[in-house]
Amino acid sequence: MIAIDAMGGDYAPHAILKGALCAAQNQHRIILCGPEKLLTEVLDGLDPQWKDLPLYIHDAPDVIAMDDDPVMSCRKKPHSSLVQAVKLVKEGKATHAMSAGNSGALVIASIFILGRQEHCERPAIAGFLPTPQGSVFALDLGANTEVRPQHLYQFALIGAHHIEQSYGKEKPSVGLLANGHEPGKGSLIVREAHDLLLDAPINFIGNVEPYHIFNQEVDIVVCDGFSGNILLKTMEAVYKASMRMMVHGNYISSDDVATVIQRLDPRIMGGARLLGVKGNVIVCHGGADDIAIYNAVKKIDSLHSQCL
Amino acid sequence: MIAIDAMGGDYAPHAILKGALCAAQNQHRIILCGPEKLLTEVLDGLDPQWKDLPLYIHDAPDVIAMDDDPVMSCRKKPHSSLVQAVKLVKEGKATHAMSAGNSGALVIASIFILGRQEHCERPAIAGFLPTPQGSVFALDLGANTEVRPQHLYQFALIGAHHIEQSYGKEKPSVGLLANGHEPGKGSLIVREAHDLLLDAPINFIGNVEPYHIFNQEVDIVVCDGFSGNILLKTMEAVYKASMRMMVHGNYISSDDVATVIQRLDPRIMGGARLLGVKGNVIVCHGGADDIAIYNAVKKIDSLHSQCL
Repeated sequence: MIAIDAMGGDYAPHAILKGALCAAQNQHRIILCGPEKLLTEVLDGLDPQWKDLPLYIHDAPDVIAMDDDPVMSCRKKPHSSLVQAVKLVKEGKATHAMSAGNSGALVIASIFILGRQEHCERPAIAGFLPTPQGSVFALDLGANTEVRPQHLYQFALIGAHHIEQSYGKEKPSVGLLANGHEPGKGSLIVREAHDLLLDAPINFIGNVEPYHIFNQEVDIVVCDGFSGNILLKTMEAVYKASMRMMVHGNYISSDDVATVIQRLDPRIMGGARLLGVKGNVIVCHGGADDIAIYNAVKKIDSLHSQCL
Repeated sequence: MIAIDAMGGDYAPHAILKGALCAAQNQHRIILCGPEKLLTEVLDGLDPQWKDLPLYIHDAPDVIAMDDDPVMSCRKKPHSSLVQAVKLVKEGKATHAMSAGNSGALVIASIFILGRQEHCERPAIAGFLPTPQGSVFALDLGANTEVRPQHLYQFALIGAHHIEQSYGKEKPSVGLLANGHEPGKGSLIVREAHDLLLDAPINFIGNVEPYHIFNQEVDIVVCDGFSGNILLKTMEAVYKASMRMMVHGNYISSDDVATVIQRLDPRIMGGARLLGVKGNVIVCHGGADDIAIYNAVKKIDSLHSQCL
């Protein structure tokens, strides 16, 4: 059972409900958190038969806006759709909470409600970056704009642990994002983290640059949330820009683009995961549409069944 | 007359000499800095008639390696090809110095030899990022992995001044790279820089994200050198990755790709410029090949003639 914040994201609630409905139509079990009356109206418009599906509404009258202060809004809006989705995980009513809303607030709500994992001072947003050959796991993608060296060290450990445990990959290689692959490159914080990681009980391969990622030369990339966010969003923007060039130049049809970029489309990759808290929290892109939401649900359930 | 460090870059000296030779064959005037005997041998092999071209050798027996410490190497190797190229600018024997070598050393040599411009504590590497519609000027692309808010402020001013003076664009729009377009997003340093920039005598439009760049919604992007380097290199890696996908999937031919990406290829954009020092210094990509070197020369001379 996945608890989805129906009011979070640039296209909420409509796109979120459309994606959730599609998931429920494909036998995924969903609890939608949001104002009951509004959600019922939208769902009735999308599919009058929705009540026959494994799709439930958990009434949450408040909404945390995208630009609300994370800490203040979590404190002042305990009945918001975002906070309630996380609470359902804490109460054991859902296995996962998912939101495309204010990611800062989602991180704070998860820390407050679920608590931090041991040996992890700062939870990190972690996700797969699509590459032509497959994907590379990266963290932090935006939870921590400021980090200290030990946080980068902890990100490396929780990232490696997650990939080993959830995907059965032994000794995944871990790289530290820097502006040069040579040791000694990077900011002071990156250089100190590099030295800490040399002694970490993981397969640390040193500094990596973006081309190592897109050539699939590393399994996991560790970075601060500011750089990680720039990396992720540049990737998305450039994939889109190069596809636009292709279509505008009449080199390929829109249909071909759709096929080609299917593996590169960030929407296909599903949501990112908040690692370092005691519970499953999925962070979706603010611009998530119905396809992104549906894929995020599919990814969770396919991984979940793999692990059982 | 452009002084080129013939020994700097991953493919030096061969690719550098090949690019310089091509430039000289197209009437650009070049001084190559490097070990005279070696350069003569390579040039003889490439074109036995090279001495008829406007291509000269300035003997510089030492070489600064890519991983040499910038400050130490500039002090200890005054006769290196990199330092000598900058010296030729100081002495008025060249209008520009260009290197694809150790960019940290190039920044330090330029500061030591040419001096900083007034009101600029930290020179920045500035260049055009190709977009489907044109290009966006960005700085810093890698000179300063650590910055303070006033440095970002100064980058904005020297960037706007350069675009106004060299390209005649009035009041170019300036954005601050952040992990969200809303004011208040970004690291502490970015947030403080944002507030400083609100009062700057430029057309500051606030925070920008990568999609603003690739949608051409801003003229100049300001960032620290770590993030800027990640932005630049992610852009390059993803353009390449998506093109590989296209060709491998047999959607388009290699020839078509060549045409399509001509405008997106970072090699076409020429070198980046070191802004904030008293002289013209061009920073080429470490992986620059002969085409990149030739294009960097072409860009300099076309801009130079525009300005005269």
